Amino acid sequence: MPQPIPILASMSARPGPIITLTTDFGLTDWYVAAMKAVLLRECPEVRLVDMTHLVRPGDVMAGAMVLERAVHGFAEGTIHVVVIDPGVGSDRRLLVAQMAGQTVVAPDNGLITWAWQRWGGGIAWEIVWRPTVSSNTFHGRDILAPVAGMLAAGKGVEELARPMSDPVLLDVAPAESPARSGVIIHIDHFGNCTTNIPGSALAGRVLVKTGEREIGISRTYCDVRPGEPLALIGSSELLEIAVRNGSAADLLGLKVGDIITIVPAP
Amino acid sequence: MPQPIPILASMSARPGPIITLTTDFGLTDWYVAAMKAVLLRECPEVRLVDMTHLVRPGDVMAGAMVLERAVHGFAEGTIHVVVIDPGVGSDRRLLVAQMAGQTVVAPDNGLITWAWQRWGGGIAWEIVWRPTVSSNTFHGRDILAPVAGMLAAGKGVEELARPMSDPVLLDVAPAESPARSGVIIHIDHFGNCTTNIPGSALAGRVLVKTGEREIGISRTYCDVRPGEPLALIGSSELLEIAVRNGSAADLLGLKVGDIITIVPAP
Amino acid sequence: MPQPIPILASMSARPGPIITLTTDFGLTDWYVAAMKAVLLRECPEVRLVDMTHLVRPGDVMAGAMVLERAVHGFAEGTIHVVVIDPGVGSDRRLLVAQMAGQTVVAPDNGLITWAWQRWGGGIAWEIVWRPTVSSNTFHGRDILAPVAGMLAAGKGVEELARPMSDPVLLDVAPAESPARSGVIIHIDHFGNCTTNIPGSALAGRVLVKTGEREIGISRTYCDVRPGEPLALIGSSELLEIAVRNGSAADLLGLKVGDIITIVPAP
Repeated sequence: MPQPIPILASMSARPGPIITLTTDFGLTDWYVAAMKAVLLRECPEVRLVDMTHLVRPGDVMAGAMVLERAVHGFAEGTIHVVVIDPGVGSDRRLLVAQMAGQTVVAPDNGLITWAWQRWGGGIAWEIVWRPTVSSNTFHGRDILAPVAGMLAAGKGVEELARPMSDPVLLDVAPAESPARSGVIIHIDHFGNCTTNIPGSALAGRVLVKTGEREIGISRTYCDVRPGEPLALIGSSELLEIAVRNGSAADLLGLKVGDIITIVPAP
Repeated sequence: MPQPIPILASMSARPGPIITLTTDFGLTDWYVAAMKAVLLRECPEVRLVDMTHLVRPGDVMAGAMVLERAVHGFAEGTIHVVVIDPGVGSDRRLLVAQMAGQTVVAPDNGLITWAWQRWGGGIAWEIVWRPTVSSNTFHGRDILAPVAGMLAAGKGVEELARPMSDPVLLDVAPAESPARSGVIIHIDHFGNCTTNIPGSALAGRVLVKTGEREIGISRTYCDVRPGEPLALIGSSELLEIAVRNGSAADLLGLKVGDIITIVPAP
Repeated sequence: MPQPIPILASMSARPGPIITLTTDFGLTDWYVAAMKAVLLRECPEVRLVDMTHLVRPGDVMAGAMVLERAVHGFAEGTIHVVVIDPGVGSDRRLLVAQMAGQTVVAPDNGLITWAWQRWGGGIAWEIVWRPTVSSNTFHGRDILAPVAGMLAAGKGVEELARPMSDPVLLDVAPAESPARSGVIIHIDHFGNCTTNIPGSALAGRVLVKTGEREIGISRTYCDVRPGEPLALIGSSELLEIAVRNGSAADLLGLKVGDIITIVPAP
């Protein structure tokens, strides 16, 4: 009696789970690779994607921005490990959080704020799993990476963590709608200044005011002449202040925390 | 009647297609990862290799150098995504180009110049595919990455683009042969200065002249004493000016665009 | 007669071998990617992990530190390629070395020192394999990467190299035990200063003395106030001098090579 012929296509290996990494570890040392070594031990099929490792040391708000973009970009099932952890060794908690079908493993210091707010507050757990041996200075390698790796390998979160209802959230949120003011929350490699004002919160014909300067809203960087300032809805769907072919941060003297006002166009 | 036994070896998964990435996005933000997220959605098996993301913002010539080296190094079938795109949001075209059995996805602003000239001008298409939703500022994520990912997943280029005959090429080419002069086209991390003079274009015993200084041609960095200048055929098969254990750019005051003369050795 | 049904699970592809890369190539050029292209040609299944490419140019001791951490972190079977090679083109040897079940491919200039000493001196071979065409300036791409790739693909080391008994070792070793003094061997991205004194070599209640300053030993960074100095056993199990939320290198004026003394606590 004929046997079914194995269907080769269905046997092709499914690509492994994706874990992204965001840290303030910099790129000169072995710290990022030390975490990757652990992740690859716990889940040999894992595929690792670097978000960035050049978050300013200890800058939790900047890490929260990157994490929100990670959740925006990646598919359901992705795991995001974020280690900006100035409180390492203190009694700050470590957490697992889920939003938009994705999982975050991070210190409980506000790193999830922006993703939690923009993607709908999800579920959070406090990590109770601890290794038999751990350093006091590198919980990214010794606790967060093993937990993320075990989750990627299929272990249930309830085996590693217990529910928590009050993850730490920073005092920042998308601006009210319609927006009358906001704040610069990120300055990128090009000197573009992103605000917490969603493009959808801009109503009618408006100008963006920073200090005494009023800037019109353009569709693209090329709507003004090289060297001139503009405002536009950037690729994060947030209001952004830029200078064509230049650095808005340098040329306009802007920095994170600066207040931006929205005024009616004349 | 015996059935054939499946040959396990032939069932092992073939490694996925390779996509390289070259940008001027820097490493502090999430922009490179945003492109990788799209590539992994379009083609889950893809394997991603970073060329560099530290091309000077808007420096198309430097990006063209990196792309030529990408085409040199990687195997047939590789896809290279290059995003140095100062014209994003203008009406500049986006292209797919092929040379040496490899595929480039990039803005049509001259980025393919050096690869096109050294590897034999190939075929080019203008990308006509557009997403239903796109930012005006990040076509790397919104158009180039999806197109590269779809090509990697097996979609035909003719479904995404239409033939074009006139891709933009920069006014730079390998020097004439035999070479009498050339120009510095790249300065690397070590301060080594690469010219557009192929090693094969050097005829007879010659010296390299920069300003008033004449430099002999060596076989390796170790042919001169530490701190002394030398010229040699570098790993890109191009004439290179270097200083042993030092930076030729700093110590000799060289920069991209400087003219180099070839003179007979006495 | 029924045939055995193939067990799909056992057919899933085994993840490919892991190769780590440590260089002083920087991140602005295509040099790292040129090595990756060769590794992927020689062993298409390979999975590549960057340790760091920002070792200071020519700093063999710093590369030795990173390699020791690579051997510490990764699993048996991992291959580590290290290219800090100021002697490229001279008659310095190239080697394959094994320790802790892992394989190192590197110039024979002392890069293996710290791993060799901490993980038990293993076996070393001098690479005799040479390509038909090679540059004189980039043996990382032309010799070390092909050799590492061939080893990853299953070729025997004895086909590429011959036994050697005297690999170059630098004049640095873990401090004596109990430790009375040591030296700073690494300063990281955060300004933390790692010494060559193993935590296990500290006996009794001691202070760490640098210059005229005496520093107590803490368990974690959070045991002192922000901005204050501390010493602790870091994540490399070595004595480390740090400043909470600051740079010990900057604030205490420390640098690699500085002598550290251990004195009894009063």
